Amino acid sequence: MQAVVILDGRLDTVERPDPVPGDTELLVAVRAAGVNGADLAQSRGAYPAPPGVPADIPGLELAGEVAAIGRRVTRFAVGDRVMALVGGGAQASLATVDETHTLPVPAALSWPEAGGFPEVYATAFDALFSQGGLTLGERVLVSGASGGVGTAAVQLAAAAGAQVTAVVRAAAQREAVAALGASRVIDSSEVAGHGPYDVVLELVGGAGLKVALSALATQGRVLVIGVGGGAELALDLFELMGKRAQVRGSTLRSRTPAEKAAVLAALRAGVLPLLTAGRVRVPVCATFPLDQAQRAYEVFAAPGKLGKVVLVA
Amino acid sequence: MQAVVILDGRLDTVERPDPVPGDTELLVAVRAAGVNGADLAQSRGAYPAPPGVPADIPGLELAGEVAAIGRRVTRFAVGDRVMALVGGGAQASLATVDETHTLPVPAALSWPEAGGFPEVYATAFDALFSQGGLTLGERVLVSGASGGVGTAAVQLAAAAGAQVTAVVRAAAQREAVAALGASRVIDSSEVAGHGPYDVVLELVGGAGLKVALSALATQGRVLVIGVGGGAELALDLFELMGKRAQVRGSTLRSRTPAEKAAVLAALRAGVLPLLTAGRVRVPVCATFPLDQAQRAYEVFAAPGKLGKVVLVA
Repeated sequence: MQAVVILDGRLDTVERPDPVPGDTELLVAVRAAGVNGADLAQSRGAYPAPPGVPADIPGLELAGEVAAIGRRVTRFAVGDRVMALVGGGAQASLATVDETHTLPVPAALSWPEAGGFPEVYATAFDALFSQGGLTLGERVLVSGASGGVGTAAVQLAAAAGAQVTAVVRAAAQREAVAALGASRVIDSSEVAGHGPYDVVLELVGGAGLKVALSALATQGRVLVIGVGGGAELALDLFELMGKRAQVRGSTLRSRTPAEKAAVLAALRAGVLPLLTAGRVRVPVCATFPLDQAQRAYEVFAAPGKLGKVVLVA
Repeated sequence: MQAVVILDGRLDTVERPDPVPGDTELLVAVRAAGVNGADLAQSRGAYPAPPGVPADIPGLELAGEVAAIGRRVTRFAVGDRVMALVGGGAQASLATVDETHTLPVPAALSWPEAGGFPEVYATAFDALFSQGGLTLGERVLVSGASGGVGTAAVQLAAAAGAQVTAVVRAAAQREAVAALGASRVIDSSEVAGHGPYDVVLELVGGAGLKVALSALATQGRVLVIGVGGGAELALDLFELMGKRAQVRGSTLRSRTPAEKAAVLAALRAGVLPLLTAGRVRVPVCATFPLDQAQRAYEVFAAPGKLGKVVLVA
C-alpha cells in the first residue's frame, strides 16, 4: 500500500506492506482521510502514536470501501461505504479498522466529507454532550469555531437548541460560521462582553481561556480539547468554587477500544441521523492527494480556513 | 436572643430581637453550632454573607430543639431535636431554619456532635459522591484530613469502599485519622509517591494541589472545596487532556434553597443511617460558650486539631 509517513518532521509517501485485518476488523480501501491537530502535533514530534497503531503513519479518521473482513465481523460486508475512527494509520491507501469504530456513510455524502467526519464530530459530540451535558437553551461558547471540530460543534450545539456564541479569528469566515447555526459570531476580544456561558468548548487554549472562565455562568463547564495557543492556565480556585464550575480536559486518541466503541455508538445514535438528513454537514476547505501530505499539513496549520483539510487516495 | 456578631474583624456577643419563623421555617433553640472555614473567612471580611441571612451573625450549621413552627411546616413539631444547614446566623441562641434544610438528630448523638454535623457532612458527601462520583474500590486523596470536612470525608469514603489516602500535617493526629478508616495517613511530601488517585478532595489549596494533580489517574476528578493555603493553580491543560481529568470547585453556601434541600435529602438518605448506626461520627475537639466565640475561632484557625470546634448555647 501507499502510506504517508513522518520522517524527520516532514511528511513523505512510501510503499508499505498491506495490513491484514484481525478477527473483528475491516480492511478498508481508503478514499479520504481528514487531517487533524493531533496529526500536526505528531508530525512535529510532540504527540507520539499510542501502542497498537502504526508509529509513523498519521491519520485518525478515514472513509472508504470495505475490501476484506475479519472472520468475526458481523456488521459490514465487502463493498460497503464506511467511515471510521482509528488511533493512527488512516493516511494510507489501505487501513484496518475495528467494526465497532466504524459507521456507514450516508448516500449523499462525498468521500472527502465522510473522511473528515468521524474525528471531529466524535470529539465535538463527546465533549459537548457526553461530558459537558449541554442541553436545550444553554449558552455555549466555541473558540476556534471555523476549524474542523469548531464547525462540527457549532452545528451540533445549534441542533440541540443551545445558543451558540462562536469565536472566529478570520473575518472572512464569520458569515459562513453564522450560516452553520451560531447565534453570534465574535472576535476573541468580545468574549467577556457576551457571557455568561454555561459551556465553553475550548479548542485554542492560551490567554482566551482565562477570559472565558471569567465569563462562565454558575455551574458552568469548560471542556478543553485543543491547546495549540498555549497549555498553561492560571486558574483562580476561589472563583471556580464560587461558580461551582468545572474544567475538564479530553482527548479521544488515548481511549481504550471499548471506550471508543461507546463514543461511536453515541455518534451513530445522536449524529448520523442528522448527517443523513443534511441537518449537519462537513465543510471541506481543501483536498490533497496522499503524496501532497506535506502541503496539506501546511494548509491545515495556516489560519483562516473553514472546516476540514482532507487527503484523498 | 443572644448572638455572636462580627465587629471590626473581632467576634462579640450581643442581644438581638428574636427571629420569627416564616411559613416553612422552624424556630430553633440552638444548643450547638459548629465553626467552619467560611465563618473564619467572613470574620476576616473575606466572605460576605449571601442575601437573605443575617449579615453579621456567622454560623452555617446548628442543632437544637424546635421552639416554634411556621404554619406550613409538616415534618417537625415543637420539641423535636433537629440539626440544620443555614446560610448564616447559626451562632446565636435562636435561629430560623427551613424544614427542608433540617434533619432529625439521632438519639445517641450529643448536641456538640449534632451541631457540628450538617455543614461538614453535607460538604463531604456532595463533593465526593454527588459531584465526584466516588465509587467502590476507587482511590481517593483527602488533603487536610484531620479537620471537620476531612474527618467526615475519610469516614464516608471508607464506608463507600474506597481506598483512602489521608494527608495530615500534625503527626499527633495520624493515628486518630487512621482509626476513622484511612488506608494510609501521610505527610504532604508523600502525596506523589502514593498515587495514582481517582478522586482528590482538596481542602487546603496551595502548592499541594499541583502535586496531587500530577498523581491523578486517568479520568480523575479533583474537587476543590477549601483554598486557605492558596487559591491560584497553574494548570497544565495538556496533562488535563491526556488524563481526561476534571477540576471542579464547589461551595454549599451560595446555593439556592431548592439546591440545598436536594443536598439535605441526599444526606438524609446516604449518611443519616450511618450516623444513627454509629458507623460514622463527628469528632469534636473543643466546645466554647457563645460568649467565647473569639477564642473558639482562634482555636479553629490553629493547626493540629482533630475534628470540629463547636459553640454551645
